[in-house]
Amino acid sequence: MTKIKATNITWHEGHVIRSERETLLNQKGTLIWLTGLSGSGKSTIAFTVEHALVQRGHLAYCLDGDNIRHGLNKNLGFSEEDRQENIRRIGEVGKLYVDTGIVTLTSFISPYRRDRDANRALLEEGEFFEVYVEAPLEVCEQRDPKGLYKKARAGELKGFTGIDDPYEEPLAPELVIHTDRVSPQEASVQIIAMLEANGRIPALEA
Amino acid sequence: MTKIKATNITWHEGHVIRSERETLLNQKGTLIWLTGLSGSGKSTIAFTVEHALVQRGHLAYCLDGDNIRHGLNKNLGFSEEDRQENIRRIGEVGKLYVDTGIVTLTSFISPYRRDRDANRALLEEGEFFEVYVEAPLEVCEQRDPKGLYKKARAGELKGFTGIDDPYEEPLAPELVIHTDRVSPQEASVQIIAMLEANGRIPALEA
Repeated sequence: MTKIKATNITWHEGHVIRSERETLLNQKGTLIWLTGLSGSGKSTIAFTVEHALVQRGHLAYCLDGDNIRHGLNKNLGFSEEDRQENIRRIGEVGKLYVDTGIVTLTSFISPYRRDRDANRALLEEGEFFEVYVEAPLEVCEQRDPKGLYKKARAGELKGFTGIDDPYEEPLAPELVIHTDRVSPQEASVQIIAMLEANGRIPALEA
Repeated sequence: MTKIKATNITWHEGHVIRSERETLLNQKGTLIWLTGLSGSGKSTIAFTVEHALVQRGHLAYCLDGDNIRHGLNKNLGFSEEDRQENIRRIGEVGKLYVDTGIVTLTSFISPYRRDRDANRALLEEGEFFEVYVEAPLEVCEQRDPKGLYKKARAGELKGFTGIDDPYEEPLAPELVIHTDRVSPQEASVQIIAMLEANGRIPALEA
């Protein structure tokens, strides 16, 4: 066992540059912003991509309601102002993750174009991929995995996206996935192919 | 070139477990919380450790005023409430980073014991290392790298830690570094040795 000597360590007055971490990780920091109605399939796709990337040896991480709403954003409610701040903070954390070199997925309804565009603007060209996870409202409502549409229809949930609050479709997303005809696996293949085609991760060699 | 087939990708309904990412990275997600007066040397130590770890092939990232105060926390001022929220958010981001498997350093004065302890409580035993970067006030004030003590003494800055706002020393930090007698290099060696001794990164083999 060798002890590191102080003389082998160099004094630094600034951050490690991002490209050094990216070289280490063999990938480029990227933010994949999934948006779509509740029940459209965002989380399943995000988790499936996260698993597929880690299995390929890449560092991927998914930010979602589980790890954000109970932590960083637990002091936010569902007022218009709080929803905007919710998405803003997620965008800022996404920016830190991108700077760290991580392939980051976010899985939030994020219904307002203004908020998604503001997060795109935080990053450099080519780092932000807006993925519209699309399914007709009727399909999402039929799936209703968390029983939220039922509550919204019963008037127990106010301001629910698609019922009594608008969803603003992306105007120029990098990718649209129609989950009423595409499986989560196929969706993940499309997202991974997009990452490869844009040089965010290396393509698999034969 | 092989195309990934959808059949090679498995549908997932949950996050990748942390240990999978840690295995990939050959390290354990860790939060190194540096605390101390302005000018005590926190950032230089944090940057020096960050560089040394990345050079050893580890994924390390430093959260500091540069990347936090201008981003995630740009809507916070310096009131008591905002300072507390500032430290709370950094702790929550640190928790996400730890879950991602990253050796994370934070470099903030963080003068209140209550706020630091709250962040320690967010993490599991053994994941949080409080490092007290200590130097006498007179030494910090003489260094005054950002000219802040001068401004505080002139009354241009109110509520400045050490001048007209208290600094609460850690009661049981994992490590104390006296920067009036220890160089940033030596401090970094101590922090890296602490990470090795606690199994957060593997020791270098001869």
